[in-house]
Amino acid sequence: MNLKAYLEARRLVVEEALARYVPTGSGPAARLQEAMRYSLLAGGKRIRPILHLATVEACGGDPQECLGFACALEMIHTYSLIHDDLPAMDDDELRRGRHTNHVVFGEAMALLAGDGLLTEAFRLIAHEALEKGLDPPRVLRATLELATAAGPQGMVGGQAADILSEGRQVSPETLAFIHTHKTGALIRASVRTGGILAGASQESLESLTRYGEALGLAFQIRDDLLNEEGDPVKLGKAVKTDQARGKATYPGLFGAQESRRRLESLVGEAMEALQSLGAEAEPMRQIALYMARRDH
Amino acid sequence: MNLKAYLEARRLVVEEALARYVPTGSGPAARLQEAMRYSLLAGGKRIRPILHLATVEACGGDPQECLGFACALEMIHTYSLIHDDLPAMDDDELRRGRHTNHVVFGEAMALLAGDGLLTEAFRLIAHEALEKGLDPPRVLRATLELATAAGPQGMVGGQAADILSEGRQVSPETLAFIHTHKTGALIRASVRTGGILAGASQESLESLTRYGEALGLAFQIRDDLLNEEGDPVKLGKAVKTDQARGKATYPGLFGAQESRRRLESLVGEAMEALQSLGAEAEPMRQIALYMARRDH
Repeated sequence: MNLKAYLEARRLVVEEALARYVPTGSGPAARLQEAMRYSLLAGGKRIRPILHLATVEACGGDPQECLGFACALEMIHTYSLIHDDLPAMDDDELRRGRHTNHVVFGEAMALLAGDGLLTEAFRLIAHEALEKGLDPPRVLRATLELATAAGPQGMVGGQAADILSEGRQVSPETLAFIHTHKTGALIRASVRTGGILAGASQESLESLTRYGEALGLAFQIRDDLLNEEGDPVKLGKAVKTDQARGKATYPGLFGAQESRRRLESLVGEAMEALQSLGAEAEPMRQIALYMARRDH
Repeated sequence: MNLKAYLEARRLVVEEALARYVPTGSGPAARLQEAMRYSLLAGGKRIRPILHLATVEACGGDPQECLGFACALEMIHTYSLIHDDLPAMDDDELRRGRHTNHVVFGEAMALLAGDGLLTEAFRLIAHEALEKGLDPPRVLRATLELATAAGPQGMVGGQAADILSEGRQVSPETLAFIHTHKTGALIRASVRTGGILAGASQESLESLTRYGEALGLAFQIRDDLLNEEGDPVKLGKAVKTDQARGKATYPGLFGAQESRRRLESLVGEAMEALQSLGAEAEPMRQIALYMARRDH
């Protein structure tokens, strides 16, 4: 398969849907809607929704029916970036080659834009489920999975641990907690919710879990490596910021060479986990290779 | 009925459930859980969950089954207070007689505590629905209603309009937008979701909507009046802050006397709307009177 064309085609479908699901507003809160769209439609690889749709397809589901859920994943990812960039958090001024939300819209509006996207994600899931007649129990199970992954037991918990660890000597256990929660949980959920909505068997869900977990960690290690040795132009954001802030990273704790070795081993685990899913999972294999080896 | 005893009994049920649904944590993110609990368990009237449970009961549903949804309403209300108090927003240091979240836990942790409570609200709804075997389509409809009321088309949109209007001359239309969105939407949703989960008829839902809208606006006018002329000790927070910040308020635009007249007329509308619901709706009537006339 031609992965580049596949990713591009799926990305366009997601872009179009995101722009439709979060339209420009009017009235006294129009500026909020503008702030939400500014970050949501700022490009990006759309890896989480693409991964979700690829999993739906690999499990015999209809990706068209799950487009709302896929976009909800991206909305949650985007909200987390907006809040993460705020002065009280990482205080970043550049993201995807553009000014961060609060630089353009001010802190209050950026805060609300994040809150708005997070809430809108759950609204969209319920709305699309009712509109398209999706199986309600499956939607509830997928919602539970997503909210668990995004909340204090997942991403938000990882963010908190990351902030609390800044400038401290971090143990391998705490680093593993931060990685599996801060980015791993939402990637794992992007995969597993695809399986849940498509009605995958318990056995398939277990394979998807192993794939999602390996991929989530591989993605984060790649991210850490890119922050240390990547090209700021390709990345569209500053590099070496983790080190400057005293953030715990994989290469910081284990070195670049060991990080690359671990990355390749995780890619192998992800491939292994997909064996039982057969040929339909080919895009998922290619996506894993791409995510682990990307240069931006 | 003895409203005071009724409110107190319901409040205790909600308190106990909130403490159980958001337990103390352990591990690297334990401090986040502590920050969430600090604000969630800081007292408060628990008006939204009590209103929700009263509506469930008036419509023939089982309030015990809806306790999770009721607590989700309070979690969303609490997250909005935490974010609203942040320096980038209203910059308040006192809430319910205690230091606000960011004063105690720092801005980053307060931001994440808010994000965590919002996400956890939707997790709790899905979790409880699956655990207690609630009717999945009703839960999806109630979730859609709640997320619409809490997000950019509701509360977050109202917050944005409020922030954007600070220090400006505000038209009666913009003030109405801010009131109906910032506080009205969640109160209306507290009522309507109770009806939806209890399987209320379309006609009953329309009555509930009229009740919820009148009550939401009455609540906000009372809030504005208390901010202007209330007792800071009873309120547990500073007064006259709206005026100092140039915030648009009902008494600011129409005067205190006209505000009180409008308040009483809204209480009448709320009573009128409940007529078709009969004797089972007595607590809802009493709650409306209480909300419109409270001194804290």
